[in-house]
Amino acid sequence: MLSTMSSFFLRTLREDPADAEIISHKLLVRAGYIRRAAPGIYTWLPAGLRVLGKVERIVREEMAAIGVQEVHFPALLPREPYEATGRWTEYGENLFRLQDRRKNDYLLAPTHEEMFTLLVKDLYSSYKDLPAQLYQVQTKYRDEARPRAGIVRGREFIMKDAYSFDIDADGLAASYELYRGAYLRIFERLGLPVAVVEADAGAMGGSRSEEFLFPTPAGEDTFVRSPGGYAANVEAVVTLVPEPVVHDVEPPAPTMVRTPGADTIDTLVTSLDAEAPRTDGRPWAAADTLKNLVLALSHPDGEREIVVVGIPGDRAMDEKRAEVAFAPAEVETATADDLRKHPELVPGYIGPRPEHARGDEKAVRYLLDPRVVDGSVWASGADEDGVHVVGLVAGRDFVADGTVEIADVRAGDPAPDGSGPLELARGMEMGHIFQLGTKYAEALGLSVLDPNGKAVTVTMGSYGLGVTRAVAAIVEATADEKGLSWPAVVAPFHVHVLATGKGEEIFAAAADLAGRLADAGAEVLYDDRPKVSAGVKFADAELIGVPYSLVVGRGLANGVVEVRNRATDEREELAPDDAAAEILRRLAADGVLPE
Amino acid sequence: MLSTMSSFFLRTLREDPADAEIISHKLLVRAGYIRRAAPGIYTWLPAGLRVLGKVERIVREEMAAIGVQEVHFPALLPREPYEATGRWTEYGENLFRLQDRRKNDYLLAPTHEEMFTLLVKDLYSSYKDLPAQLYQVQTKYRDEARPRAGIVRGREFIMKDAYSFDIDADGLAASYELYRGAYLRIFERLGLPVAVVEADAGAMGGSRSEEFLFPTPAGEDTFVRSPGGYAANVEAVVTLVPEPVVHDVEPPAPTMVRTPGADTIDTLVTSLDAEAPRTDGRPWAAADTLKNLVLALSHPDGEREIVVVGIPGDRAMDEKRAEVAFAPAEVETATADDLRKHPELVPGYIGPRPEHARGDEKAVRYLLDPRVVDGSVWASGADEDGVHVVGLVAGRDFVADGTVEIADVRAGDPAPDGSGPLELARGMEMGHIFQLGTKYAEALGLSVLDPNGKAVTVTMGSYGLGVTRAVAAIVEATADEKGLSWPAVVAPFHVHVLATGKGEEIFAAAADLAGRLADAGAEVLYDDRPKVSAGVKFADAELIGVPYSLVVGRGLANGVVEVRNRATDEREELAPDDAAAEILRRLAADGVLPE
Repeated sequence: MLSTMSSFFLRTLREDPADAEIISHKLLVRAGYIRRAAPGIYTWLPAGLRVLGKVERIVREEMAAIGVQEVHFPALLPREPYEATGRWTEYGENLFRLQDRRKNDYLLAPTHEEMFTLLVKDLYSSYKDLPAQLYQVQTKYRDEARPRAGIVRGREFIMKDAYSFDIDADGLAASYELYRGAYLRIFERLGLPVAVVEADAGAMGGSRSEEFLFPTPAGEDTFVRSPGGYAANVEAVVTLVPEPVVHDVEPPAPTMVRTPGADTIDTLVTSLDAEAPRTDGRPWAAADTLKNLVLALSHPDGEREIVVVGIPGDRAMDEKRAEVAFAPAEVETATADDLRKHPELVPGYIGPRPEHARGDEKAVRYLLDPRVVDGSVWASGADEDGVHVVGLVAGRDFVADGTVEIADVRAGDPAPDGSGPLELARGMEMGHIFQLGTKYAEALGLSVLDPNGKAVTVTMGSYGLGVTRAVAAIVEATADEKGLSWPAVVAPFHVHVLATGKGEEIFAAAADLAGRLADAGAEVLYDDRPKVSAGVKFADAELIGVPYSLVVGRGLANGVVEVRNRATDEREELAPDDAAAEILRRLAADGVLPE
Repeated sequence: MLSTMSSFFLRTLREDPADAEIISHKLLVRAGYIRRAAPGIYTWLPAGLRVLGKVERIVREEMAAIGVQEVHFPALLPREPYEATGRWTEYGENLFRLQDRRKNDYLLAPTHEEMFTLLVKDLYSSYKDLPAQLYQVQTKYRDEARPRAGIVRGREFIMKDAYSFDIDADGLAASYELYRGAYLRIFERLGLPVAVVEADAGAMGGSRSEEFLFPTPAGEDTFVRSPGGYAANVEAVVTLVPEPVVHDVEPPAPTMVRTPGADTIDTLVTSLDAEAPRTDGRPWAAADTLKNLVLALSHPDGEREIVVVGIPGDRAMDEKRAEVAFAPAEVETATADDLRKHPELVPGYIGPRPEHARGDEKAVRYLLDPRVVDGSVWASGADEDGVHVVGLVAGRDFVADGTVEIADVRAGDPAPDGSGPLELARGMEMGHIFQLGTKYAEALGLSVLDPNGKAVTVTMGSYGLGVTRAVAAIVEATADEKGLSWPAVVAPFHVHVLATGKGEEIFAAAADLAGRLADAGAEVLYDDRPKVSAGVKFADAELIGVPYSLVVGRGLANGVVEVRNRATDEREELAPDDAAAEILRRLAADGVLPE
C-alpha cells in the first residue's frame, strides 16, 4: 500500500486548536488525523481512520479469540426498553432524546444493555443456550455537559460493548474473567499500560465492577493504590471504619462555646483554642470538628429532598463520591432558596440533626461519615448564630439515619483491606467491566428454563471498551514535543519515505524504494512533494509519527540513505537496498509483516 | 473459520414477520440475519453482519481502486451548514432533528454534502490540490413517512457516500465517469444486474444524475427503457414535445355545450358524443379533452400557492413527477378549503386560466402539459356548472404561464431521444450519482486559487450507494421459496456441513471434514446439533442459504457423503476426501479461496 503526500488527504497545521488542553487533542488535530465538527463531535480523516481501524481490528480479534460473536444494534432506539429499566429518566441530560415525525420518543443510545437483553430473550429460551457472549463495535452518544479533551470525552464516540448471559453467578464470574483477560491482552497489544481498579457500578447497576485505567496526568479519573496491591477508583473506595470508641471514664456533658464569626472550620479551630482550650493539652484540629453539610437531592421522581451530612472537619466533600453515594438521585449543595425553607439550619453553625432518626418524620434526614463512630467526640455547631458545642459524643448526644461515603479520599488513608496507606494517581478510563447480575434480565423479563423446566432469570455482565478513546490514550502514551509517534501495530503507515533534495535521481530512488517496500507488504507514505524543503518534510514526518522513516537525500550521491526510528530518534546510514531490508526486518519484529 | 450451529447466535423462525411484504424482508428475518428494533430500524445479527461486512469490503476495494480516500463523518451534526444550503428546511419531516442540553439544534445526517464541502474548504486552497475524491461508509438517518420492506427503506441505514472536487466541468465529467465505472464493477461483483437510468437530481441540486436500478417487481422506482437504449427513471422522463399544429383552414370559434352532470372525463366524453358529435366522424376520446387540475404548492418560505395545471384528459397526474416538477415546493391536490377561496374554479368544469399569463397578477398561475402545443384543439370546462367548451385552440383561445411535467408516463410513449416506444419496469435504487456543480461550493464558500491566482468555485459531484439495501437486493435476486441463496462472495459462510444421523461416527466424520475445510481457509458452519432431525437441518440449511452444503449421513457407511449446491440444487455423492476437495475447488472458482 503506497500513498503519496501530494495526494493523501492530510494537511498539517502549525497552531494547536484553541480549545485543546491535552497533547492527544492538539496533535491529532495538528497532524491531520481528526477535525472538530461540533463540540465533542469529530470527523476522522484518512490517517486517523486508518489508526482507528487497526485498533478496532485488535479489539475484534481478541473478542473472537474468547468466542464472543459480533452483532450490530441501531444507535437510534425507541424509548420503551429504556423506560422499562428506568434509564430513560436516570440518564438525565446526558441522553440525547428526540421525536420522530409521529411524535414517538427515541434516544441516541449511550449503551445497549436493554437491547442485548431483549435480543437474547427473543432468540433463547433454554439453559442449553447459555452461556452466550455477544458484542458490537458501535457509535454511541452522550450529551456531556463539558465535552473536552478532543476524542477523550466526546459526545459521539465509538465503543466496543460486550454482554454475557449466564445461568448463575458462577457462570457470570467465569464470563467476567474471560473478558478481564481479553482486555489485558488488548491493552498489551495496543501498548497501553493499564491499572485494573475496583470501580463503582454507577448507573449500570449490578455488583462487582472493575475499570481499566491508563495512568496519565491527563486522565479524568482519580484512583488509589496501596503497597499491598489494593487498587480502586476513588468513587469506589470504602472507608476503613474505626472501632467504636470506648471511654474508661464517661466524658462530660457537651458545653456551649461562644464563637462569634467562626463560621468556617479554620476560624472555628482558632476560636476554640481561645475560648475553650482542650484539656489534653494539644491544640484543636480540624479533625476534631464535625462539619454538617446541607445537600439537596433531586430524586428521579422529581422530589427535591434536603439532607444534612456530617463529615470530619478536615475533609471536603468529593463530588464524584457524593454522586455515586446518592445515585440515582442527583446531588448538589443546597441553595439559598433551599436554606430559606429550613430556618432551623443556621449556616456556619449547623449541629447534628438527630430528630429524624429519633422519629420526627418531618425533620431532615441526617447522615454521617463512617468515621463518626459511636463514642467519638466532636465539636460542632449549636444551631445558633455564633455558638458551637464541644464534647459531643456520637451515639450518646446524637444519632443519625445512617452513614454515607461523600468525604474525599486522601493519600495516606488506610486501604480498606488493610494493605497499607493509599497513594493517589490520575488515570484515563479505557474499559469498564460489570457483573450486572439480574437487574436488566428482571426488568425486561429475560429468563430461560433450567434442566428441571423451571424458569430462571438470566445473570448478565457488560463489558465496555472505548475505541476512539484508546486512540487518544495511545497518543498520550507515546507522543513527544515533536509530534505523534505510533507503535507499528496501529500506525497509519509503517514507513515514511522522504525525498529531501532537488535532484531527479533522489526522487527516482525514493519512488523506487517506496514502491519496493509497498510491494513487500509495507504500508508506505511517500513524501513526493517537489517544492517542499527538507526541513518542512522532516517536521511533517515527526508530527505525523510514522514509526520508521527512510530519508533519501544528499547522501544518495555517496550511496547511502538514512533509516530513522521515530520513537528512539536513532538514525542509521545504509545502502538503499540494505535500508529497505532493515525496515522490513524491523516491521517483521514488530509483528506487522511476516518474518 | 468454523462456527457450530449449537453455539452460533442464530435461530430460524417458521413464520414471516407480520409486516413483511417482500421476500428479502421475510427471509432475512426468518433466517436470523436481522431483527426489527423499531419501525425501519434493524439490528444485524452475526450472520447478517458477516454479509454486510463482505458487501462493505467490495465497495471499499472498488473505491480504493479508483483512488478515493476514506474518511468518517459524525452522524450527529450541527444545524448551521444545512441551514446555509437550505436543506435544514427543505428536508422537511424527513429529517430527524434534536436539541442538545444547551438547546442548540442538531440533525441526524441523511447525507453529507455540506460537511465534505466544508472539510475540503478547510484543508485545500489551490487548484493543485484538485481533483480530490473522498468517501465514507456511514450510518445515515431519514425519517421516512412509510418505512417499509425491511432494510430496503429503513430510517437508519448504511450508505457509501463519495464526493468529487474538481476545478471545472471537464474535471467533474471525468470524476463522474470514474465512479460510474466503479459502480458497475461493484454491482457486477455483487452479482446484481443493474440498469443505469437518467434521473432527476431532486433535492440534491445539480445537473446530470443517473440512478443504478436493480430491476425487480419489489422495487419502488418505475423506470422506462426504449428499444434504442434510452433509460430513465420515470421522474426524469422528458416528454417528446409534438410540433405545433398548423391548420390549413382556421378552426371555427369555440362552442359552449351543455353537459349537465358530466364532471368526470368519462361522463364528459359520453355527454359530448350525445350533445356535440365531432365533425370528423370519430367519437370523442379522453385524449381530446383538457383536464384542469387544481394543485396547492407549499413553498419553503411557507407560502401556499394555488396553481391550475392542464393535462390531456387521458392521463393522470404522477405524484412523483409532480413532486420533482414543483420542488422545492411540496405539492398536493387542492383541498375543499383551498377551493372555497377560489370561487372562480368550478369543480368538474374548470377551463383554461389564461388570466395570469395575460397580466392579471391576482389570478392563479396556469401551467400546461408540454403536449398542449399551439394549434392543438381541445374540449374543456366552461367555468360554469354543467357546461363545457369544444373547439378551444391552444395559443389562440388560451395561453399559459409555462409548461410542467406532471402527467404520467405510459408504455408506448415515445422516448425523448427518438429511440422508440418506451416500456415501463420496476426497479430498486441501488446507487445514485450526481454532477452537483457549484451549488454546495457556492453556498459554503469553497473556492481554490487557479494558476493565475484567481479564486475559482470548486465543482462537485456526489455518489451514493446503499450498502444495507444492497444486501436486500442480493436476496431479491437470488432467494427462492425455500430460503436465501447467497453468492459465495457475500455469503456468511462458504460451506454448511450437516451431520444427519445418529451414529457417533457420522458426527466424528462431519466434525473432521468441517475442521479440514476450515483449515484450508473456508468459512464453515457446522450443524452439530445432536438431537435435531435431518429434515429440520436441511430446512434450516436451505433457509440460511450457504452456497455449498456437505451432508454427512447414512451414506457414510458406504463411504460417501453428499455435496449440494444451494443455487442449482445439484447433488453429488462423493468419497469424503473428494467431497472436501470438490468444495475447495468450487470456492476457488468462485474467487473466495486461492486456486
